[in-house]
Amino acid sequence: MSSTIWDIAHLGHVEMFTPKLEESTRFFTEILGMYISAETANSVYLRAYDDYEHHTLKLTAHVHAGIGHYAWRVRSDEILQEKAGQIAATPNAIGWTEGDLGHGKSYQFRMPSGHLTEIYFDTEKYQAEGDARSALKNTASKFPARGMNVRRLDHINLLAQDVGTFQEFQLYHVGGRITETIRKDDGEVVGAWFSVNSKSYDLAITQDHVPDMQNRLHHVTYAVNSREEVLLAADIALENGIHIETGPHKHAIQQTFFLYLYEPGGNRVEIANSTARLVLDPDYKTIFWSLKERKKGQAWGLQTVPSFHTHGTPRPEDLI
Amino acid sequence: MSSTIWDIAHLGHVEMFTPKLEESTRFFTEILGMYISAETANSVYLRAYDDYEHHTLKLTAHVHAGIGHYAWRVRSDEILQEKAGQIAATPNAIGWTEGDLGHGKSYQFRMPSGHLTEIYFDTEKYQAEGDARSALKNTASKFPARGMNVRRLDHINLLAQDVGTFQEFQLYHVGGRITETIRKDDGEVVGAWFSVNSKSYDLAITQDHVPDMQNRLHHVTYAVNSREEVLLAADIALENGIHIETGPHKHAIQQTFFLYLYEPGGNRVEIANSTARLVLDPDYKTIFWSLKERKKGQAWGLQTVPSFHTHGTPRPEDLI
Amino acid sequence: MSSTIWDIAHLGHVEMFTPKLEESTRFFTEILGMYISAETANSVYLRAYDDYEHHTLKLTAHVHAGIGHYAWRVRSDEILQEKAGQIAATPNAIGWTEGDLGHGKSYQFRMPSGHLTEIYFDTEKYQAEGDARSALKNTASKFPARGMNVRRLDHINLLAQDVGTFQEFQLYHVGGRITETIRKDDGEVVGAWFSVNSKSYDLAITQDHVPDMQNRLHHVTYAVNSREEVLLAADIALENGIHIETGPHKHAIQQTFFLYLYEPGGNRVEIANSTARLVLDPDYKTIFWSLKERKKGQAWGLQTVPSFHTHGTPRPEDLI
Amino acid sequence: MSSTIWDIAHLGHVEMFTPKLEESTRFFTEILGMYISAETANSVYLRAYDDYEHHTLKLTAHVHAGIGHYAWRVRSDEILQEKAGQIAATPNAIGWTEGDLGHGKSYQFRMPSGHLTEIYFDTEKYQAEGDARSALKNTASKFPARGMNVRRLDHINLLAQDVGTFQEFQLYHVGGRITETIRKDDGEVVGAWFSVNSKSYDLAITQDHVPDMQNRLHHVTYAVNSREEVLLAADIALENGIHIETGPHKHAIQQTFFLYLYEPGGNRVEIANSTARLVLDPDYKTIFWSLKERKKGQAWGLQTVPSFHTHGTPRPEDLI
Repeated sequence: MSSTIWDIAHLGHVEMFTPKLEESTRFFTEILGMYISAETANSVYLRAYDDYEHHTLKLTAHVHAGIGHYAWRVRSDEILQEKAGQIAATPNAIGWTEGDLGHGKSYQFRMPSGHLTEIYFDTEKYQAEGDARSALKNTASKFPARGMNVRRLDHINLLAQDVGTFQEFQLYHVGGRITETIRKDDGEVVGAWFSVNSKSYDLAITQDHVPDMQNRLHHVTYAVNSREEVLLAADIALENGIHIETGPHKHAIQQTFFLYLYEPGGNRVEIANSTARLVLDPDYKTIFWSLKERKKGQAWGLQTVPSFHTHGTPRPEDLI
Repeated sequence: MSSTIWDIAHLGHVEMFTPKLEESTRFFTEILGMYISAETANSVYLRAYDDYEHHTLKLTAHVHAGIGHYAWRVRSDEILQEKAGQIAATPNAIGWTEGDLGHGKSYQFRMPSGHLTEIYFDTEKYQAEGDARSALKNTASKFPARGMNVRRLDHINLLAQDVGTFQEFQLYHVGGRITETIRKDDGEVVGAWFSVNSKSYDLAITQDHVPDMQNRLHHVTYAVNSREEVLLAADIALENGIHIETGPHKHAIQQTFFLYLYEPGGNRVEIANSTARLVLDPDYKTIFWSLKERKKGQAWGLQTVPSFHTHGTPRPEDLI
Repeated sequence: MSSTIWDIAHLGHVEMFTPKLEESTRFFTEILGMYISAETANSVYLRAYDDYEHHTLKLTAHVHAGIGHYAWRVRSDEILQEKAGQIAATPNAIGWTEGDLGHGKSYQFRMPSGHLTEIYFDTEKYQAEGDARSALKNTASKFPARGMNVRRLDHINLLAQDVGTFQEFQLYHVGGRITETIRKDDGEVVGAWFSVNSKSYDLAITQDHVPDMQNRLHHVTYAVNSREEVLLAADIALENGIHIETGPHKHAIQQTFFLYLYEPGGNRVEIANSTARLVLDPDYKTIFWSLKERKKGQAWGLQTVPSFHTHGTPRPEDLI
Repeated sequence: MSSTIWDIAHLGHVEMFTPKLEESTRFFTEILGMYISAETANSVYLRAYDDYEHHTLKLTAHVHAGIGHYAWRVRSDEILQEKAGQIAATPNAIGWTEGDLGHGKSYQFRMPSGHLTEIYFDTEKYQAEGDARSALKNTASKFPARGMNVRRLDHINLLAQDVGTFQEFQLYHVGGRITETIRKDDGEVVGAWFSVNSKSYDLAITQDHVPDMQNRLHHVTYAVNSREEVLLAADIALENGIHIETGPHKHAIQQTFFLYLYEPGGNRVEIANSTARLVLDPDYKTIFWSLKERKKGQAWGLQTVPSFHTHGTPRPEDLI
């Protein structure tokens, strides 16, 4: 039995590796405006001001940059059990964990690309106390008025040698639908955008142009409330010596208004706004882009910078 | 068997009655920037530039303003059949229709408040031709660059004498979840906001303060891409003699940045932007607002104008 | 010899009295995002990130809120001498000062309304050092990325029992032109907006509705870069318990997009954006507004809140 | 006697040559949202909605694209006489004209770069009638709600073989001050930005990289009210097949948020917003940029596209 589109509620959290834990933490708190939920010996747990869970980002000290794992929150415990049972029958299965700070038991497995993935349902919802409380009951915590004021985790972009097998496993065993995709003339898929709710994507998988690399991260994205705030984020990056790789500009694919930064540990981080775009159509037809269309550049004509195609974490030289 | 939260995909369309069909049509095309899909003897069918269906608004000539019917698109034909079967067993059932321009068969019924409602799945997806096509494949049609440039139908707000029975019928027979609600000290619910997808609401039901009125419309809302565009909409309304009832301002409930206008037929129309807010939590806990909290006014302190509590369509004097 | 329109370069600084110096300082630094230039026993000197002088705001501890003095920077030392000579011949003259932190000698006088005013030319231009430097040479200091990120002092609004005599003295002895004015049916002027450069106003004088009060401050305004940032300022005020008197909304007079706050000392502070409006016409014809026109409310219809007409600092009860 | 900084009020109008008068007119009316003031056999006169004069753009049919002339409005008739007298004594003098549609007598001359320039004072202020009137008395005409909604002429950028002699003539005989400049290591100035009021620039002169070309236009700029509207302008250009050369992005020089388009006749047109930046300091110190600094690209790192350095109108091939 294949997964249904609606089994997964949303991307839950991402564990990001960094060789510079302290500087990366400062980047996410002072520059992005995120809050620290907890700290352990090796990790710092963070959330954006309207993330409703304990954390959406776990920064873990590591010898190199990259991704530790990422997690999907499913819609119910029943779905968790069913999906775990289904994945258990595959060679990709790892097994149950007892959970982590902020969430209960999870079922872990590896995507065909090597990325460590988990699904979970039980979670600790963040309860703001004292000065952290928002004046509005429907906001998870106070608007920070600090740095870029990111609102919530938006999506993750991973790299894979073989986008096709990632895509198959995702659709059959994990869930979601493909809203947009890049296809070569011979039919090979080299990029796919998965949506699990009304957002137009929650995970993107694109081809790794560095041979033999496994399990690489392209970027993690946090959403801000307007395109103007993406522009302000660019001003803030400029003023604080944060490397701007490209942007602000508008993607042709998915229309996202983007800004790509490198955090001090070397990982790419995107600040984005999707305007009022949602994909509400339950039988949305996947949009296909050809490589030729991609060569036109971004929506307004910006040529994609070369590093955008090659930089991922870890870098090849990190692994020697 | 009760409905699940996820049976409905989204609000499909609204039929708005207007005693001034021509002027109302001009309002939605020239001021809001919508496109006409079709016209019949009594009705004009319209869509915003990124509405993916044939229409989201059907303007129908009528002796007075108000709402003809509104429609939910469900996630599949199976769900349509099941849900119709369930509703058929209630006194609210009306029965199947053969559809209308732009969509296939629908099942109609009345909400306890008297509102004519339908559910459907088969739909005609809009295919832009020629100059109506967007330069971006993932946009339903060209950004109009005319008037307020509304992007998509967002939600509807109805009035009911008894919010509680509306709410029960909605949750049990139709679908969705309540994200926010207004409750009197004695526990009576006087306002409820229903969400059927990742948006924080798709339908609001609030108490009709005019006794004995049934089946009234409070407003229909179209979304624009930014709060700045809501401000531009206010400038455009001012310049074109459109009555601004209140706003732009930010709702405390749901945080929507709003502008309320009266279209020439007398119906209230909202132009809104929700920033990057989404409700992704699958077991979101409903937020309760007391009347005392409501008395504080809108988010930034604006006092709600009296007409906002009393004006609905049709007006009592329309029915004499 | 009357003053010419172009003698004055711009509003230089405002000395604001506050009974709560520490809290007021926190408001201007943490909430507005301003920088401290200097502190003395009784005063704190502040500037917005793109104010080019040593300070534009001097907060001075005082038994009550209100305005100490305000200053115009003139275009040259020659103009300073001429203008001082001219004013010296009036009963309003006070005389030369040796200057203050941040600026050289100034000539002081009282406006007919009692407000202590000074003109000066020699000034200490702010030189950002180290981390305070902007990445862009053409910005006075680093974009703060803290709170409301106000950019520069914009204007001041004073109250007078007799707007007409204030206006005459300003035009004849000080400088500038009147861009907009409110006139009663009998011809009495009850509000006037003076511009001394391409901005549409730098000082507003409006009638004090509290009898017998002299020398009162209505508000001081700092500019932000967009209307969206005024909305963000409202969000920040809400989250930090800052009293929002009215707004955000658009003034009919001068079109300014405004937000009125009370700082902890009790003075009204406006956060504003003027979009791309400038008055470049050298023989601009003053625009007259009648009281009837004013009764329509602000641009988009917001009714002016009563306190806006009565609250000024000091308050009558402060003076007993 | 040299000119003073304040003799000129503002850039008055630009005459743009186009080989495609009809298409260029459609571009400025339908895409930019400008209004037609008058039409003659060979020319169309246009203004943006808040331009206060009869026109700021005169489109003239011509065998190739380029600039016919541009005009400065001076602050008074006295200044006009004085300045004309001074220029008359130079080899650059041409002489008095009887004016044109929309303005009275002007004095014409050639800048050392060959550009035909005029100064004038008498002007016909635009008086909106009927539906063209704005709801706000302080706006020259109705906000168009069409296309890019440009507000006012902002500045012009010309090309010269010798920037230094242009600069000398401008400062000595015409007026204004230099706010920013690009200087080679050997001291040669290759770009200069002149300001004549509180705007940070009204005319830019940059080096023509095509040898032997005279009298070329780099671009004409219209201002919109926010950076968000520059982004909307990019969306509109994309949807309407208008060539986007580069942007939206932020200039390091002058900080302008820009979008460069080619109008159908081949001339470059900029849509820009300057946020709340003004240069109010009467003794502002010119900012110098080195070529090395320029190589860093625009403010957020965008590399300048090659055509930006070479494309000007007329093009060399137009003149054969």
